[in-house]
Amino acid sequence: MHVLVLGGDGFCGWPTALYLSDRGHDVTIVDNLSRRAIDIELEVESLTPIRPIGERLRVWHEVSGREIGLVRLDLATEYDRLVALLSALRPDAVVHFAEQRAAPYSMRSTQSKRYTIDNNVRTTHNLLSALVATGTDAALVHLGTMGVYGYGWSGSAPIPEGYLTVKVPTPDGDLEREILHPANPGSVYHLTKTLDQLMFSFYAANDQVRITDLHQGIVWGTQTAQTVRDERLINRFDYDGDYGTVLNRFLMQAAIGHPLTVHGTGGQTRAFIHIRDTVRCIEIALANPPAAGDRPMVFNQVTESHRVRDLAKLVSSLTGVRVANLPNPRREAVENDLVVRNDRFLALGLEPTTLSEGLLDECTGIAGRYRSRVDLSKIIARSVWRSGMEIADDLLTELPTPPALQPQAAPGPHER
Amino acid sequence: MHVLVLGGDGFCGWPTALYLSDRGHDVTIVDNLSRRAIDIELEVESLTPIRPIGERLRVWHEVSGREIGLVRLDLATEYDRLVALLSALRPDAVVHFAEQRAAPYSMRSTQSKRYTIDNNVRTTHNLLSALVATGTDAALVHLGTMGVYGYGWSGSAPIPEGYLTVKVPTPDGDLEREILHPANPGSVYHLTKTLDQLMFSFYAANDQVRITDLHQGIVWGTQTAQTVRDERLINRFDYDGDYGTVLNRFLMQAAIGHPLTVHGTGGQTRAFIHIRDTVRCIEIALANPPAAGDRPMVFNQVTESHRVRDLAKLVSSLTGVRVANLPNPRREAVENDLVVRNDRFLALGLEPTTLSEGLLDECTGIAGRYRSRVDLSKIIARSVWRSGMEIADDLLTELPTPPALQPQAAPGPHER
Repeated sequence: MHVLVLGGDGFCGWPTALYLSDRGHDVTIVDNLSRRAIDIELEVESLTPIRPIGERLRVWHEVSGREIGLVRLDLATEYDRLVALLSALRPDAVVHFAEQRAAPYSMRSTQSKRYTIDNNVRTTHNLLSALVATGTDAALVHLGTMGVYGYGWSGSAPIPEGYLTVKVPTPDGDLEREILHPANPGSVYHLTKTLDQLMFSFYAANDQVRITDLHQGIVWGTQTAQTVRDERLINRFDYDGDYGTVLNRFLMQAAIGHPLTVHGTGGQTRAFIHIRDTVRCIEIALANPPAAGDRPMVFNQVTESHRVRDLAKLVSSLTGVRVANLPNPRREAVENDLVVRNDRFLALGLEPTTLSEGLLDECTGIAGRYRSRVDLSKIIARSVWRSGMEIADDLLTELPTPPALQPQAAPGPHER
Repeated sequence: MHVLVLGGDGFCGWPTALYLSDRGHDVTIVDNLSRRAIDIELEVESLTPIRPIGERLRVWHEVSGREIGLVRLDLATEYDRLVALLSALRPDAVVHFAEQRAAPYSMRSTQSKRYTIDNNVRTTHNLLSALVATGTDAALVHLGTMGVYGYGWSGSAPIPEGYLTVKVPTPDGDLEREILHPANPGSVYHLTKTLDQLMFSFYAANDQVRITDLHQGIVWGTQTAQTVRDERLINRFDYDGDYGTVLNRFLMQAAIGHPLTVHGTGGQTRAFIHIRDTVRCIEIALANPPAAGDRPMVFNQVTESHRVRDLAKLVSSLTGVRVANLPNPRREAVENDLVVRNDRFLALGLEPTTLSEGLLDECTGIAGRYRSRVDLSKIIARSVWRSGMEIADDLLTELPTPPALQPQAAPGPHER
């Protein structure tokens, strides 16, 4: 199968491209290297050292004997080149990661809000238009987010996979309808994924595009069986306040002896998935596309749910690093429960990597190894959801002597 | 009240600008004259002769003594100029008509699909961003469409004003929730209005922007009390297959003796409103904005519903012109019922102009008067929803001798 991986240089895209290549698929990465440009803008780098994309691909060829193609292309603005690419390659499938993917970055400034909307909406719509215009009958797999559902909206009802059955009162009695789950996005970034959903529904109905939307939880972990083969293949590990995801941030913080930054009470419950499971899910989705004419198929790409403060406690108990409760820069529910259905991936053979088995490896193996690369001034989250919201000062201005990163028998002292 | 009318040179925007000016408001039109550019692209003109915008404004000053400002600005691309404008003018209200508004045009080509998405989404989001960035506490009134609801989805239940009460089954019993009515857009144009809705919901919640979304039916009629004061103030009357609305097309067709073009069985039921009522509704909405922090307020801006074939029969019976059933270039339900709530505008004093009172005036007064301006090759709808769909040939290649446009006592013969 020939697969285009749009955004194949990014945190999810890169390990997906390698995994699919390793599994015998012909892979072409399409990327404008925007994630690297944002690093430059934010004056921060991945904790792990990321090699130039050309070098990454050469090393992959060395270690695997397999070629991955690369096309540098801005999907939001270079429509004609996208059409030419689809016409030339006639891919069997397209995996679409090519969107600005950080909620805090999307709320950072007017410029970043506008960039997130313009980039994400135009990229998705250009892709849909180009598939139709070129008659490319490729299965389209898109990375959505659990955040399209919002949190706490449906009480004790588990979040279904995309579609919600409701009863609509009518003069003739209740009418049962299955609707796209109501959208409750918590940031401009999440908003773009709710806009994507509506575009997908339209193009699936009008043009019979075959679309799978993967509503992914928060990804943790860094490496896959492919990215560990050579240090030059290593995946991103973002720890900064904009791009770092909560659990990876805790792991990095523990590795350098920085207090674990919990926003508000930490009562937010979120769904998680390891990057190794992400890449497996993509292949499962590619192998099980909807039929032409079907509505978009939705999978909840999550394996477990945790309350943020419980994760902080867990990392704290493993490492002895204290928890710091900071002001929350987001507008969100202080506390929420979360039950998510993920029956589809389990039924199709996914065997989840659980936090309990993978956590400490990650902590010592990556965060500890590259701790000297941390810029302490980038740790505190400073993108606020509305101007004037309180932000914390830096908690640490000097890197402490390396602590012994060993599991502790008993939890260390916790602070609120 | 100082009101910006975005898109104030267009079919709804122009009469709204004049009406608000006439009612004593300070009006500034913001427009990039894109509607005129599309006329050039499509090689067609309004049936009524439209004067340059500068002349329109000079004449309005002559006949009313009132000034309307004009700023030529592309809202989708000139964000910094929009910010400067809001900062300088500090408007009390913004009326947002600045979107590509024709469903057939939006489906005409890949280029027109992409233009519709890029223009409409970016314009709406730039506006929201700029209001927040400049701290402009203006009431925002936006022209939505009945098409966001789709047709026939909710059985015998009347379409509510924006929000639908549903019951969500949970392990603890049904949970009642009021949700944004599920989106069922029938074209890329309608799709953009569903995307607008989600952006409005987010910015109302996160930034307390005060937003009213008017889900308008199909507008008919041409003139208002202001546009009739001088022929140089006349409003657009689009009759072509892309921009002409169904009833105005029937009136034009009757005026020149062209068969009334009904697509499919004509079983589509649609909601209608006269342009005179549109401008009144805008003022009512401006006077009754939601409070800061409220979700967007939605009005259904419609006054009556009719089945397309019944309208054709009505016009045919008044004029003797026959009905022609043509292939439907759209993908839509062949037949649908439609019951729409419009309680809010009625409660706030709207007195609808009904078809029965206004129809023949419109037919003789406008369509008859300018019949010689018709380009017969532009009448048939040729934008298809998917490539390969059947389109009709021209039905008339020469303008007939003017028929006597008089009401007939008995309906003329109808053809299927």
